[in-house]
Amino acid sequence: MQEESSERGRKRRNGAVKQVGISGCMARIGRGKISHAGNMKPVIVVHGGAGKIVKELDETYRLGVKRAVLKGYDVLRQGGSALTAVEEAVIVMEDEPIFNAGHGSVLNEKGYIEMDAIIMDGKNLDSGAVSAVRNIANPIKLARLVMEKTDHMLLTCEGATLFAKAQGIPETPNDTLITERSRKRWMKNLKENSNPIADQIGLGTVGAVAIDCEGNMACATSTGGLTNKMVGRVGDTACIGSGGYADNNVGAVSTTGHGESIMKVILARLILHYMEQGKSPEEAADAGLNYMKSRVEGTGGAIIVNSSGDWTAKFSTNQMSWAAVKDDQLHIGIYHGENNVIPLEKAL
Amino acid sequence: MQEESSERGRKRRNGAVKQVGISGCMARIGRGKISHAGNMKPVIVVHGGAGKIVKELDETYRLGVKRAVLKGYDVLRQGGSALTAVEEAVIVMEDEPIFNAGHGSVLNEKGYIEMDAIIMDGKNLDSGAVSAVRNIANPIKLARLVMEKTDHMLLTCEGATLFAKAQGIPETPNDTLITERSRKRWMKNLKENSNPIADQIGLGTVGAVAIDCEGNMACATSTGGLTNKMVGRVGDTACIGSGGYADNNVGAVSTTGHGESIMKVILARLILHYMEQGKSPEEAADAGLNYMKSRVEGTGGAIIVNSSGDWTAKFSTNQMSWAAVKDDQLHIGIYHGENNVIPLEKAL
Repeated sequence: MQEESSERGRKRRNGAVKQVGISGCMARIGRGKISHAGNMKPVIVVHGGAGKIVKELDETYRLGVKRAVLKGYDVLRQGGSALTAVEEAVIVMEDEPIFNAGHGSVLNEKGYIEMDAIIMDGKNLDSGAVSAVRNIANPIKLARLVMEKTDHMLLTCEGATLFAKAQGIPETPNDTLITERSRKRWMKNLKENSNPIADQIGLGTVGAVAIDCEGNMACATSTGGLTNKMVGRVGDTACIGSGGYADNNVGAVSTTGHGESIMKVILARLILHYMEQGKSPEEAADAGLNYMKSRVEGTGGAIIVNSSGDWTAKFSTNQMSWAAVKDDQLHIGIYHGENNVIPLEKAL
Repeated sequence: MQEESSERGRKRRNGAVKQVGISGCMARIGRGKISHAGNMKPVIVVHGGAGKIVKELDETYRLGVKRAVLKGYDVLRQGGSALTAVEEAVIVMEDEPIFNAGHGSVLNEKGYIEMDAIIMDGKNLDSGAVSAVRNIANPIKLARLVMEKTDHMLLTCEGATLFAKAQGIPETPNDTLITERSRKRWMKNLKENSNPIADQIGLGTVGAVAIDCEGNMACATSTGGLTNKMVGRVGDTACIGSGGYADNNVGAVSTTGHGESIMKVILARLILHYMEQGKSPEEAADAGLNYMKSRVEGTGGAIIVNSSGDWTAKFSTNQMSWAAVKDDQLHIGIYHGENNVIPLEKAL
């Protein structure tokens, strides 16, 4: 197993045997010490949500996931951690108003934004999450602080806001995060006979998974949730195993789709269970998505990387915007069967 | 499979072939129609939390879990659903101040109570949960209403309170729910050098799992969480797959212990995965608890029933109060290896 050999590599390094990083990983210098890069090829995959993407927004989505994946890959290429890579990639998409996360999030029934986010470290299964958090620009940053600065794993609502203040995160007024598109959608769904769930199409949760030079894996997912949802509704994203899961022994997964269906089958963990039983990431994603469809009639998507660096982006919805970088090749797609490959130097 | 034969039994009944309930299941009469009981032996298991139970409270814990399991079994014996049985059993323990759920919940760092609860229906994987909810007596009732009256599965904090009001659930002032014991513990843990996690011992989350005459399974878990926790901290209980999971094809599990460790390994779902791979409930519980100990150094406990009606109550902590009823026998225990069996007629 690639992951195990990387582990052995680290142990040898601890025994003062020098190793030179390969596969595009540069040595990282910090606090006067040289931290040698490992021997794993870094890989990152991002998604901008599964659903139905209208043709006129196709290019905006592509540009969004491309910018995110390049940002995350840049972290990995410099020897940065999978954790920082997925966080940085998700921040790009939270800041991009086309996605349903951070700026651009959908509104709840009362017309304001409540967001969920999770980040997970595959090394020790530690994780941080926030649910129904308001008035911050980047919930994924707060999720990481929950993981690193508290004894807890999930802070909700007012408690999450108090913690954000204590950590010096500036308050971002709700109105700053709301886009004209989200407000129009909310207004439309306030009408009788509207169908907010069907209207969810194209409003994607964002996520990222990565493996770094050391063989460590991480996932991150962030969302504004379901449009016109009840106040306080928490979906799959904040629930460990549903919105994402990462385990260095197996792989990392970030999911998107109908939150309640994803929760019923705990999709991210289910996919990793299939991988533990010998399935490839692609087979495991298909098995997980098929099970979700047959058992609870839910559709969605998932991005996956395993401990050997194999990756996939699969969905049972009409579309899902996604991008990946491996071996200095950028992969990008929205439609079923689509996989545009561009050499990295041309994509930058 | 017992569960499948019960399913076939239901189909035959729908085809107007009369069946008489066995194994202590009485026919249930409602709205002028007779609903015949199925052919599954009903089983219920409850827990009052894993940790360290001080000797002088031993009998109070035993009485609490006994009252809860008898209440739940009474529902099943009358042909009631597993869902109602676990809800009723948990309500008994929420109302009993010795347990860390509902009345008797521990206090957060600011000195008030925030509770988490989940209920799950193994038939369709539907579930309802609340997190960080305040000022209600029975969070498990609210969790069931989330499942049955909304399109969502988890409502948090203020949103959960708004929903409770809309459903006509009376507000119960925080002070009414606080016991002298919880307040003293909170005061003690406000001091420097205190260790709230170690002090958690003996303050148990409560839970129940059941299989009814129809072969349907359910789980329910309710808790006040971790003593002196941060405002808004949500633990395993509200997270589907961590605090509990139920699937008619496999079994039902409710967990207790160090919440953050349970979340890291998604303990309830993990145990069911082991059962899907052929392990008995007891073997699966041991495997799950051992994995949690070795991978993330966490301890806890679980109660399990499978689709054949086999059950177990296992824990890696010093003690766990639990009780079960099957075949008109009450089982009860607190210590490792303890299983006191009492004929039901003597226990009533």
